[in-house]
Amino acid sequence: MKTRMTELLGVRYPIIQGGLQGLGRADLAAAVSDAGGLGLITAGCFDTCAELEAEILHARTLTDKPVGVNISIGTRRTMSDFLDCICDLGVGIIFTSGHNPESFVDRIKRFGMKWVHVVPAVRFAHKAQDLGADAVVVVGFEAGGHPGMDDVALSVLVRKASVELSIPVIAAGGISDGRSMIAALAWGAEGVQLGTRFVLTRESALHPIMKECLQQATEHDTIMIERSLRKSRRVLRTTQAEAVIALERDGATFEQLKHIIGGEAYLE
Amino acid sequence: MKTRMTELLGVRYPIIQGGLQGLGRADLAAAVSDAGGLGLITAGCFDTCAELEAEILHARTLTDKPVGVNISIGTRRTMSDFLDCICDLGVGIIFTSGHNPESFVDRIKRFGMKWVHVVPAVRFAHKAQDLGADAVVVVGFEAGGHPGMDDVALSVLVRKASVELSIPVIAAGGISDGRSMIAALAWGAEGVQLGTRFVLTRESALHPIMKECLQQATEHDTIMIERSLRKSRRVLRTTQAEAVIALERDGATFEQLKHIIGGEAYLE
Repeated sequence: MKTRMTELLGVRYPIIQGGLQGLGRADLAAAVSDAGGLGLITAGCFDTCAELEAEILHARTLTDKPVGVNISIGTRRTMSDFLDCICDLGVGIIFTSGHNPESFVDRIKRFGMKWVHVVPAVRFAHKAQDLGADAVVVVGFEAGGHPGMDDVALSVLVRKASVELSIPVIAAGGISDGRSMIAALAWGAEGVQLGTRFVLTRESALHPIMKECLQQATEHDTIMIERSLRKSRRVLRTTQAEAVIALERDGATFEQLKHIIGGEAYLE
Repeated sequence: MKTRMTELLGVRYPIIQGGLQGLGRADLAAAVSDAGGLGLITAGCFDTCAELEAEILHARTLTDKPVGVNISIGTRRTMSDFLDCICDLGVGIIFTSGHNPESFVDRIKRFGMKWVHVVPAVRFAHKAQDLGADAVVVVGFEAGGHPGMDDVALSVLVRKASVELSIPVIAAGGISDGRSMIAALAWGAEGVQLGTRFVLTRESALHPIMKECLQQATEHDTIMIERSLRKSRRVLRTTQAEAVIALERDGATFEQLKHIIGGEAYLE
Protein backbone atom coordinates (compact mmCIF):
# COMPACT_ATOMS: atom_id res chain seq x y z
CA MET A 1 0.00 0.00 0.00
CA LYS A 2 1.46 3.30 -1.16
CA THR A 3 1.00 6.77 0.32
CA ARG A 4 3.32 9.76 0.42
CA MET A 5 4.22 8.60 3.93
CA THR A 6 5.30 5.12 2.87
CA GLU A 7 7.39 6.67 0.09
CA LEU A 8 8.94 9.21 2.44
CA LEU A 9 9.91 6.69 5.10
CA GLY A 10 10.63 3.76 2.79
CA VAL A 11 8.20 1.34 4.41
CA ARG A 12 5.65 -1.09 3.01
CA TYR A 13 2.64 -0.23 5.18
CA PRO A 14 1.53 3.20 6.44
CA ILE A 15 1.79 2.01 10.05
CA ILE A 16 4.08 3.46 12.72
CA GLN A 17 4.76 2.25 16.21
CA GLY A 18 4.75 5.48 18.19
CA GLY A 19 7.16 6.56 20.92
CA LEU A 20 6.63 4.49 24.08
CA GLN A 21 8.27 5.61 27.30
CA GLY A 22 9.99 2.57 28.83
CA LEU A 23 8.83 0.20 26.09
CA GLY A 24 10.13 1.61 22.79
CA ARG A 25 13.17 -0.64 22.63
CA ALA A 26 15.02 -2.50 19.89
CA ASP A 27 13.06 -5.76 20.07
CA LEU A 28 9.71 -4.09 19.49
CA ALA A 29 10.89 -1.43 17.02
CA ALA A 30 12.84 -3.92 14.90
CA ALA A 31 9.90 -6.34 14.82
CA VAL A 32 7.55 -3.60 13.57
CA SER A 33 10.01 -2.45 10.90
CA ASP A 34 10.79 -6.01 9.87
CA ALA A 35 7.06 -6.65 9.36
CA GLY A 36 6.82 -3.68 6.98
CA GLY A 37 5.79 -0.83 9.29
CA LEU A 38 8.07 1.67 10.98
CA GLY A 39 9.35 0.95 14.46
CA LEU A 40 10.72 3.72 16.65
CA ILE A 41 13.26 3.41 19.43
CA THR A 42 12.22 5.83 22.16
CA ALA A 43 15.21 7.83 23.37
CA GLY A 44 13.42 8.59 26.63
CA CYS A 45 13.86 4.95 27.69
CA PHE A 46 17.58 5.55 28.24
CA ASP A 47 19.73 7.51 30.65
CA THR A 48 22.88 7.88 28.58
CA CYS A 49 23.95 8.20 24.95
CA ALA A 50 25.89 4.97 25.29
CA GLU A 51 22.73 3.09 26.21
CA LEU A 52 20.75 4.62 23.34
CA GLU A 53 23.59 3.87 20.93
CA ALA A 54 23.76 0.23 22.05
CA GLU A 55 20.00 -0.13 21.50
CA ILE A 56 20.14 1.32 18.00
CA LEU A 57 23.02 -0.97 17.08
CA HIS A 58 21.13 -3.92 18.55
CA ALA A 59 18.09 -3.08 16.39
CA ARG A 60 20.32 -3.16 13.32
CA THR A 61 21.27 -6.74 14.10
CA LEU A 62 17.55 -7.65 14.17
CA THR A 63 16.40 -6.12 10.88
CA ASP A 64 17.84 -4.49 7.79
CA LYS A 65 14.72 -2.33 7.44
CA PRO A 66 14.75 1.31 8.62
CA VAL A 67 14.19 1.85 12.34
CA GLY A 68 13.59 5.42 13.54
CA VAL A 69 14.17 7.18 16.82
CA ASN A 70 11.61 9.18 18.82
CA ILE A 71 12.90 12.10 20.86
CA SER A 72 10.59 13.88 23.27
CA ILE A 73 11.90 17.43 23.35
CA GLY A 74 12.10 19.31 26.59
CA THR A 75 11.55 16.40 28.92
CA ARG A 76 15.26 16.18 29.82
CA ARG A 77 18.37 18.12 28.91
CA THR A 78 20.01 14.96 27.60
CA MET A 79 17.60 14.93 24.66
CA SER A 80 19.84 17.35 22.80
CA ASP A 81 22.82 15.04 23.43
CA PHE A 82 20.71 12.15 22.20
CA LEU A 83 20.16 14.04 18.96
CA ASP A 84 23.93 14.37 18.50
CA CYS A 85 24.25 10.67 19.19
CA ILE A 86 21.73 9.63 16.53
CA CYS A 87 23.26 12.06 14.03
CA ASP A 88 26.61 10.34 14.54
CA LEU A 89 25.04 6.92 14.10
CA GLY A 90 23.46 7.85 10.79
CA VAL A 91 19.88 7.23 11.90
CA GLY A 92 17.74 8.10 8.89
CA ILE A 93 14.38 8.86 10.51
CA ILE A 94 13.64 10.99 13.55
CA PHE A 95 10.29 11.66 15.20
CA THR A 96 10.21 14.61 17.59
CA SER A 97 7.43 15.37 20.04
CA GLY A 98 6.72 17.48 23.10
CA HIS A 99 8.04 21.01 22.88
CA ASN A 100 9.14 23.38 20.12
CA PRO A 101 11.59 21.54 17.84
CA GLU A 102 13.22 24.71 16.51
CA SER A 103 16.61 24.21 18.15
CA PHE A 104 16.82 20.70 16.68
CA VAL A 105 16.06 21.57 13.07
CA ASP A 106 19.55 22.57 11.91
CA ARG A 107 21.15 19.34 13.02
CA ILE A 108 18.28 17.21 11.67
CA LYS A 109 18.58 18.86 8.27
CA ARG A 110 22.37 18.88 8.20
CA PHE A 111 22.43 15.12 8.69
CA GLY A 112 19.74 14.59 6.05
CA MET A 113 17.31 12.83 8.34
CA LYS A 114 13.64 12.40 7.45
CA TRP A 115 11.88 14.38 10.13
CA VAL A 116 8.35 13.86 11.47
CA HIS A 117 7.01 16.05 14.29
CA VAL A 118 4.18 14.94 16.58
CA VAL A 119 1.52 17.56 17.41
CA PRO A 120 -1.78 17.67 19.32
CA ALA A 121 -3.27 20.59 17.35
CA VAL A 122 -3.48 21.85 13.77
CA ARG A 123 -1.75 25.15 14.58
CA PHE A 124 1.37 23.26 15.73
CA ALA A 125 1.23 21.16 12.56
CA HIS A 126 1.50 24.36 10.52
CA LYS A 127 4.43 25.46 12.63
CA ALA A 128 6.23 22.14 12.09
CA GLN A 129 5.62 22.36 8.34
CA ASP A 130 7.00 25.90 8.33
CA LEU A 131 10.12 24.68 10.15
CA GLY A 132 10.69 22.07 7.46
CA ALA A 133 9.15 18.89 8.87
CA ASP A 134 8.66 16.19 6.23
CA ALA A 135 5.42 14.97 7.81
CA VAL A 136 3.40 15.43 11.00
CA VAL A 137 1.68 13.02 13.34
CA VAL A 138 -1.57 14.60 14.53
CA VAL A 139 -2.71 13.26 17.89
CA GLY A 140 -6.41 13.32 18.79
CA PHE A 141 -8.31 13.47 22.07
CA GLU A 142 -8.64 9.66 21.95
CA ALA A 143 -4.92 9.08 22.37
CA GLY A 144 -3.27 7.35 25.30
CA GLY A 145 -0.32 9.30 26.64
CA HIS A 146 -0.37 12.92 25.54
CA PRO A 147 -3.51 14.03 23.70
CA GLY A 148 -2.99 17.76 24.31
CA MET A 149 -5.28 20.20 26.07
CA ASP A 150 -7.78 21.01 23.35
CA ASP A 151 -10.12 18.01 23.59
CA VAL A 152 -10.67 17.76 19.83
CA ALA A 153 -11.33 14.33 18.36
CA LEU A 154 -8.94 12.88 15.79
CA SER A 155 -11.54 12.96 13.00
CA VAL A 156 -11.81 16.74 13.24
CA LEU A 157 -8.04 17.34 13.51
CA VAL A 158 -7.06 15.06 10.64
CA ARG A 159 -9.76 16.32 8.27
CA LYS A 160 -8.59 19.88 8.86
CA ALA A 161 -4.84 19.21 8.88
CA SER A 162 -4.92 17.13 5.71
CA VAL A 163 -6.76 19.86 3.84
CA GLU A 164 -4.56 22.71 5.09
CA LEU A 165 -1.06 21.18 5.03
CA SER A 166 1.02 20.23 2.03
CA ILE A 167 3.10 17.61 3.90
CA PRO A 168 1.64 14.17 4.74
CA VAL A 169 -0.48 13.85 7.87
CA ILE A 170 -0.26 10.74 10.05
CA ALA A 171 -3.19 10.05 12.40
CA ALA A 172 -2.74 8.93 16.01
CA GLY A 173 -5.21 8.24 18.80
CA GLY A 174 -7.67 5.39 19.10
CA ILE A 175 -6.33 3.58 16.03
CA SER A 176 -6.52 -0.10 16.89
CA ASP A 177 -7.03 -2.17 13.75
CA GLY A 178 -7.35 -2.15 9.98
CA ARG A 179 -10.81 -0.62 10.10
CA SER A 180 -9.64 2.38 12.09
CA MET A 181 -6.68 2.72 9.73
CA ILE A 182 -9.02 2.81 6.72
CA ALA A 183 -11.09 5.46 8.51
CA ALA A 184 -7.99 7.60 9.03
CA LEU A 185 -7.02 7.26 5.38
CA ALA A 186 -10.58 8.26 4.39
CA TRP A 187 -10.20 11.47 6.43
CA GLY A 188 -7.09 12.28 4.40
CA ALA A 189 -4.31 10.86 6.57
CA GLU A 190 -1.50 9.08 4.76
CA GLY A 191 -0.55 6.84 7.64
CA VAL A 192 -1.37 5.92 11.22
CA GLN A 193 0.67 5.83 14.40
CA LEU A 194 -0.35 3.33 17.07
CA GLY A 195 0.83 3.18 20.68
CA THR A 196 -1.35 1.05 22.95
CA ARG A 197 -1.91 -1.60 20.28
CA PHE A 198 1.85 -2.20 20.05
CA VAL A 199 2.18 -2.19 23.84
CA LEU A 200 0.05 -5.34 23.75
CA THR A 201 2.25 -7.29 21.34
CA ARG A 202 4.41 -10.28 22.22
CA GLU A 203 7.48 -8.19 21.40
CA SER A 204 6.57 -5.49 23.94
CA ALA A 205 8.36 -5.74 27.28
CA LEU A 206 5.31 -4.73 29.34
CA HIS A 207 4.57 -7.11 32.21
CA PRO A 208 1.96 -9.73 31.22
CA ILE A 209 -0.30 -8.68 34.10
CA MET A 210 -0.35 -5.10 32.78
CA LYS A 211 -1.05 -6.37 29.25
CA GLU A 212 -3.95 -8.35 30.66
CA CYS A 213 -5.23 -5.24 32.51
CA LEU A 214 -5.13 -3.17 29.33
CA GLN A 215 -6.89 -5.86 27.33
CA GLN A 216 -9.66 -6.11 29.91
CA ALA A 217 -10.14 -2.33 30.06
CA THR A 218 -13.25 -0.81 28.49
CA GLU A 219 -13.82 2.60 26.94
CA HIS A 220 -14.65 3.93 30.41
CA ASP A 221 -11.40 2.86 32.02
CA THR A 222 -9.14 5.74 31.05
CA ILE A 223 -8.86 9.08 32.76
CA MET A 224 -7.03 12.34 32.04
CA ILE A 225 -4.46 13.50 34.58
CA GLU A 226 -2.17 16.57 34.73
CA ARG A 227 -4.89 18.82 33.32
CA SER A 228 -4.36 21.34 36.13
CA LEU A 229 -0.69 21.55 35.08
CA ARG A 230 -1.75 22.47 31.53
CA LYS A 231 -0.42 19.13 30.39
CA SER A 232 -2.72 16.26 29.71
CA ARG A 233 -2.15 12.55 29.96
CA ARG A 234 -4.67 9.79 29.25
CA VAL A 235 -3.95 6.89 31.59
CA LEU A 236 -5.62 3.77 32.92
CA ARG A 237 -8.10 4.66 35.66
CA THR A 238 -6.17 3.21 38.60
CA THR A 239 -6.24 4.03 42.32
CA GLN A 240 -3.08 5.99 41.69
CA ALA A 241 -4.56 7.98 38.82
CA GLU A 242 -7.59 8.82 40.96
CA ALA A 243 -5.20 9.94 43.70
CA VAL A 244 -3.44 12.27 41.25
CA ILE A 245 -6.78 13.80 40.23
CA ALA A 246 -7.67 14.36 43.89
CA LEU A 247 -4.31 16.04 44.56
CA GLU A 248 -4.71 18.18 41.44
CA ARG A 249 -8.11 19.28 42.73
CA ASP A 250 -6.31 20.48 45.86
CA GLY A 251 -3.86 22.49 43.76
CA ALA A 252 -0.84 20.16 43.88
CA THR A 253 2.23 21.23 41.89
CA PHE A 254 4.16 19.04 39.46
CA GLU A 255 6.88 18.67 42.11
CA GLN A 256 4.30 17.23 44.48
CA LEU A 257 2.86 14.89 41.86
CA LYS A 258 5.90 13.67 39.98
CA HIS A 259 6.82 10.86 42.38
CA ILE A 260 3.34 9.39 41.91
CA ILE A 261 3.09 9.99 38.16
CA GLY A 262 6.61 8.69 37.66
CA GLY A 263 5.66 5.46 39.36
CA GLU A 264 8.37 5.58 42.01
CA ALA A 265 5.89 5.68 44.87
CA TYR A 266 2.64 3.81 45.22
CA LEU A 267 -0.44 4.96 47.06
CA GLU A 268 -2.75 2.37 48.49
CA MET B 1 -25.49 2.57 -1.74
CA LYS B 2 -26.95 -0.28 0.26
CA THR B 3 -26.58 -1.07 3.95
CA ARG B 4 -28.95 -2.75 6.38
CA MET B 5 -29.91 0.77 7.44
CA THR B 6 -30.94 1.91 3.97
CA GLU B 7 -32.98 -1.30 3.58
CA LEU B 8 -34.61 -0.86 6.97
CA LEU B 9 -35.62 2.74 6.42
CA GLY B 10 -36.25 2.53 2.69
CA VAL B 11 -33.84 5.29 1.70
CA ARG B 12 -31.23 5.57 -1.04
CA TYR B 13 -28.28 6.91 0.98
CA PRO B 14 -27.24 5.98 4.54
CA ILE B 15 -27.58 9.61 5.64
CA ILE B 16 -29.95 10.91 8.30
CA GLN B 17 -30.72 14.46 9.31
CA GLY B 18 -30.81 14.21 13.11
CA GLY B 19 -33.31 15.79 15.47
CA LEU B 20 -32.83 19.57 15.63
CA GLN B 21 -34.56 21.55 18.36
CA GLY B 22 -36.27 24.51 16.71
CA LEU B 23 -35.02 23.64 13.23
CA GLY B 24 -36.26 20.13 12.46
CA ARG B 25 -39.27 21.23 10.45
CA ALA B 26 -41.02 20.05 7.31
CA ASP B 27 -39.02 22.11 4.79
CA LEU B 28 -35.68 20.71 5.90
CA ALA B 29 -36.83 17.15 6.62
CA ALA B 30 -38.69 16.82 3.32
CA ALA B 31 -35.71 18.20 1.37
CA VAL B 32 -33.37 15.63 2.94
CA SER B 33 -35.77 12.75 2.28
CA ASP B 34 -36.47 13.95 -1.23
CA ALA B 35 -32.72 13.95 -1.95
CA GLY B 36 -32.45 10.30 -0.90
CA GLY B 37 -31.54 10.56 2.79
CA LEU B 38 -33.90 10.45 5.74
CA GLY B 39 -35.25 13.71 7.13
CA LEU B 40 -36.71 13.88 10.63
CA ILE B 41 -39.32 16.28 11.91
CA THR B 42 -38.37 17.14 15.49
CA ALA B 43 -41.41 16.92 17.75
CA GLY B 44 -39.72 19.19 20.28
CA CYS B 45 -40.16 22.14 17.90
CA PHE B 46 -43.90 22.19 18.62
CA ASP B 47 -46.13 22.99 21.56
CA THR B 48 -49.24 21.05 20.60
CA CYS B 49 -50.20 17.90 18.75
CA ALA B 50 -52.12 20.02 16.25
CA GLU B 51 -48.94 21.87 15.32
CA LEU B 52 -46.91 18.68 14.97
CA GLU B 53 -49.69 17.11 12.90
CA ALA B 54 -49.86 20.11 10.57
CA GLU B 55 -46.08 19.93 10.05
CA ILE B 56 -46.14 16.22 9.22
CA LEU B 57 -48.99 16.77 6.75
CA HIS B 58 -47.09 19.68 5.23
CA ALA B 59 -43.99 17.48 4.73
CA ARG B 60 -46.16 14.99 2.86
CA THR B 61 -47.07 17.69 0.37
CA LEU B 62 -43.34 18.32 -0.27
CA THR B 63 -42.13 14.75 -0.89
CA ASP B 64 -43.51 11.28 -1.36
CA LYS B 65 -40.40 9.77 0.29
CA PRO B 66 -40.51 8.64 3.93
CA VAL B 67 -40.04 11.39 6.54
CA GLY B 68 -39.52 10.30 10.15
CA VAL B 69 -40.20 11.98 13.47
CA ASN B 70 -37.71 12.49 16.31
CA ILE B 71 -39.09 12.46 19.84
CA SER B 72 -36.86 13.45 22.74
CA ILE B 73 -38.23 11.45 25.65
CA GLY B 74 -38.54 13.01 29.06
CA THR B 75 -38.01 16.60 28.03
CA ARG B 76 -41.72 17.42 28.28
CA ARG B 77 -44.84 15.52 29.27
CA THR B 78 -46.40 16.24 25.88
CA MET B 79 -43.92 13.88 24.22
CA SER B 80 -46.14 10.92 25.08
CA ASP B 81 -49.11 12.73 23.49
CA PHE B 82 -46.93 13.42 20.45
CA LEU B 83 -46.31 9.69 20.16
CA ASP B 84 -50.08 9.07 20.08
CA CYS B 85 -50.38 11.76 17.43
CA ILE B 86 -47.77 10.22 15.11
CA CYS B 87 -49.27 6.75 15.63
CA ASP B 88 -52.62 8.11 14.44
CA LEU B 89 -51.00 9.75 11.42
CA GLY B 90 -49.35 6.51 10.31
CA VAL B 91 -45.79 7.83 10.53
CA GLY B 92 -43.57 4.90 9.56
CA ILE B 93 -40.26 5.83 11.19
CA ILE B 94 -39.63 7.10 14.71
CA PHE B 95 -36.33 8.12 16.30
CA THR B 96 -36.35 8.38 20.08
CA SER B 97 -33.64 10.00 22.18
CA GLY B 98 -33.03 11.28 25.67
CA HIS B 99 -34.38 9.06 28.41
CA ASN B 100 -35.44 5.42 28.74
CA PRO B 101 -37.81 4.59 25.84
CA GLU B 102 -39.44 1.64 27.64
CA SER B 103 -42.86 3.22 28.09
CA PHE B 104 -42.99 4.05 24.36
CA VAL B 105 -42.17 0.59 23.02
CA ASP B 106 -45.65 -0.97 23.10
CA ARG B 107 -47.22 1.78 21.05
CA ILE B 108 -44.29 1.93 18.60
CA LYS B 109 -44.51 -1.81 17.99
CA ARG B 110 -48.33 -1.91 17.87
CA PHE B 111 -48.34 0.66 15.09
CA GLY B 112 -45.59 -1.18 13.18
CA MET B 113 -43.18 1.75 13.11
CA LYS B 114 -39.49 1.31 12.35
CA TRP B 115 -37.82 2.39 15.55
CA VAL B 116 -34.32 3.84 15.98
CA HIS B 117 -33.09 4.90 19.43
CA VAL B 118 -30.30 7.46 19.90
CA VAL B 119 -27.69 6.67 22.59
CA PRO B 120 -24.45 8.22 23.86
CA ALA B 121 -22.93 4.95 25.15
CA VAL B 122 -22.65 1.30 24.13
CA ARG B 123 -24.46 0.03 27.26
CA PHE B 124 -27.56 2.03 26.29
CA ALA B 125 -27.32 0.64 22.75
CA HIS B 126 -27.57 -2.88 24.18
CA LYS B 127 -30.58 -1.84 26.22
CA ALA B 128 -32.31 -0.38 23.16
CA GLN B 129 -31.60 -3.56 21.19
CA ASP B 130 -33.03 -5.65 24.05
CA LEU B 131 -36.17 -3.49 24.02
CA GLY B 132 -36.66 -4.19 20.33
CA ALA B 133 -35.11 -1.19 18.57
CA ASP B 134 -34.52 -1.78 14.85
CA ALA B 135 -31.30 0.26 14.86
CA VAL B 136 -29.38 2.63 17.11
CA VAL B 137 -27.70 5.95 16.54
CA VAL B 138 -24.48 6.05 18.60
CA VAL B 139 -23.42 9.60 19.46
CA GLY B 140 -19.75 10.36 20.11
CA PHE B 141 -17.93 12.98 22.16
CA GLU B 142 -17.55 15.08 18.99
CA ALA B 143 -21.28 15.71 18.67
CA GLY B 144 -22.99 19.06 18.89
CA GLY B 145 -26.00 19.00 21.17
CA HIS B 146 -25.96 16.02 23.53
CA PRO B 147 -22.79 13.93 23.45
CA GLY B 148 -23.39 12.27 26.84
CA MET B 149 -21.17 12.34 29.90
CA ASP B 150 -18.58 9.68 29.05
CA ASP B 151 -16.22 11.63 26.79
CA VAL B 152 -15.58 8.73 24.45
CA ALA B 153 -14.83 9.50 20.81
CA LEU B 154 -17.12 8.19 18.09
CA SER B 155 -14.45 5.91 16.61
CA VAL B 156 -14.25 3.93 19.85
CA LEU B 157 -18.02 3.76 20.40
CA VAL B 158 -18.91 2.71 16.86
CA ARG B 159 -16.15 0.07 16.60
CA LYS B 160 -17.38 -1.50 19.81
CA ALA B 161 -21.13 -1.15 19.18
CA SER B 162 -20.94 -2.54 15.65
CA VAL B 163 -19.08 -5.62 16.87
CA GLU B 164 -21.34 -6.27 19.86
CA LEU B 165 -24.82 -5.49 18.50
CA SER B 166 -26.80 -7.44 15.94
CA ILE B 167 -28.92 -4.43 14.81
CA PRO B 168 -27.43 -1.74 12.54
CA VAL B 169 -25.39 1.04 14.12
CA ILE B 170 -25.62 4.61 12.83
CA ALA B 171 -22.75 6.97 13.68
CA ALA B 172 -23.28 10.56 14.84
CA GLY B 173 -20.89 13.28 15.94
CA GLY B 174 -18.40 15.21 13.85
CA ILE B 175 -19.64 13.72 10.56
CA SER B 176 -19.41 16.54 8.05
CA ASP B 177 -18.79 15.17 4.56
CA GLY B 178 -18.38 12.09 2.42
CA ARG B 179 -14.94 11.35 3.82
CA SER B 180 -16.19 11.23 7.38
CA MET B 181 -19.10 9.05 6.24
CA ILE B 182 -16.68 6.58 4.64
CA ALA B 183 -14.69 6.55 7.89
CA ALA B 184 -17.84 5.71 9.86
CA LEU B 185 -18.71 2.89 7.45
CA ALA B 186 -15.14 1.56 7.79
CA TRP B 187 -15.61 1.38 11.58
CA GLY B 188 -18.67 -0.79 11.02
CA ALA B 189 -21.49 1.76 11.02
CA GLU B 190 -24.24 1.27 8.44
CA GLY B 191 -25.22 4.89 8.25
CA VAL B 192 -24.50 8.36 9.58
CA GLN B 193 -26.62 10.98 11.29
CA LEU B 194 -25.64 14.64 10.82
CA GLY B 195 -26.91 17.63 12.72
CA THR B 196 -24.77 20.75 12.35
CA ARG B 197 -24.11 20.10 8.66
CA PHE B 198 -27.85 20.21 7.94
CA VAL B 199 -28.30 23.29 10.13
CA LEU B 200 -26.13 25.06 7.55
CA THR B 201 -28.25 24.18 4.53
CA ARG B 202 -30.39 26.58 2.55
CA GLU B 203 -33.47 24.66 3.71
CA SER B 204 -32.64 25.20 7.40
CA ALA B 205 -34.54 28.03 9.07
CA LEU B 206 -31.55 29.19 11.15
CA HIS B 207 -30.86 32.93 10.89
CA PRO B 208 -28.21 33.67 8.25
CA ILE B 209 -26.04 35.45 10.82
CA MET B 210 -25.98 32.31 12.97
CA LYS B 211 -25.18 30.18 9.92
CA GLU B 212 -22.28 32.51 9.19
CA CYS B 213 -21.09 32.24 12.83
CA LEU B 214 -21.12 28.44 12.69
CA GLN B 215 -19.29 28.40 9.37
CA GLN B 216 -16.56 30.68 10.73
CA ALA B 217 -16.13 28.63 13.91
CA THR B 218 -13.00 26.51 14.33
CA GLU B 219 -12.42 23.28 16.23
CA HIS B 220 -11.70 25.38 19.33
CA ASP B 221 -14.99 27.26 19.29
CA THR B 222 -17.26 24.79 21.03
CA ILE B 223 -17.64 24.27 24.75
CA MET B 224 -19.49 21.78 26.95
CA ILE B 225 -22.13 23.14 29.29
CA GLU B 226 -24.47 21.48 31.82
CA ARG B 227 -21.76 19.05 32.92
CA SER B 228 -22.40 19.89 36.58
CA LEU B 229 -26.04 18.87 36.06
CA ARG B 230 -24.90 15.46 34.80
CA LYS B 231 -26.14 16.42 31.37
CA SER B 232 -23.77 17.55 28.69
CA ARG B 233 -24.31 19.87 25.79
CA ARG B 234 -21.75 20.91 23.20
CA VAL B 235 -22.49 24.49 22.15
CA LEU B 236 -20.80 27.39 20.40
CA ARG B 237 -18.41 29.16 22.78
CA THR B 238 -20.39 32.38 23.24
CA THR B 239 -20.44 34.94 26.07
CA GLN B 240 -23.62 33.26 27.21
CA ALA B 241 -22.07 29.79 27.23
CA GLU B 242 -19.11 31.10 29.23
CA ALA B 243 -21.58 32.65 31.67
CA VAL B 244 -23.32 29.29 32.11
CA ILE B 245 -19.98 27.62 32.85
CA ALA B 246 -19.20 30.29 35.45
CA LEU B 247 -22.61 29.84 37.12
CA GLU B 248 -22.14 26.06 37.08
CA ARG B 249 -18.81 26.52 38.83
CA ASP B 250 -20.71 28.37 41.56
CA GLY B 251 -23.14 25.47 41.92
CA ALA B 252 -26.13 26.86 40.00
CA THR B 253 -29.16 24.58 39.63
CA PHE B 254 -30.99 23.84 36.39
CA GLU B 255 -33.78 26.17 37.53
CA GLN B 256 -31.23 28.97 37.82
CA LEU B 257 -29.69 28.19 34.42
CA LYS B 258 -32.64 27.33 32.25
CA HIS B 259 -33.60 30.88 31.31
CA ILE B 260 -30.08 31.40 29.93
CA ILE B 261 -29.73 27.99 28.30
CA GLY B 262 -33.23 28.28 26.84
CA GLY B 263 -32.26 31.54 25.22
CA GLU B 264 -35.04 33.61 26.73
CA ALA B 265 -32.64 35.95 28.50
CA TYR B 266 -29.34 37.33 27.29
CA LEU B 267 -26.32 38.19 29.37
CA GLU B 268 -23.97 40.85 28.16
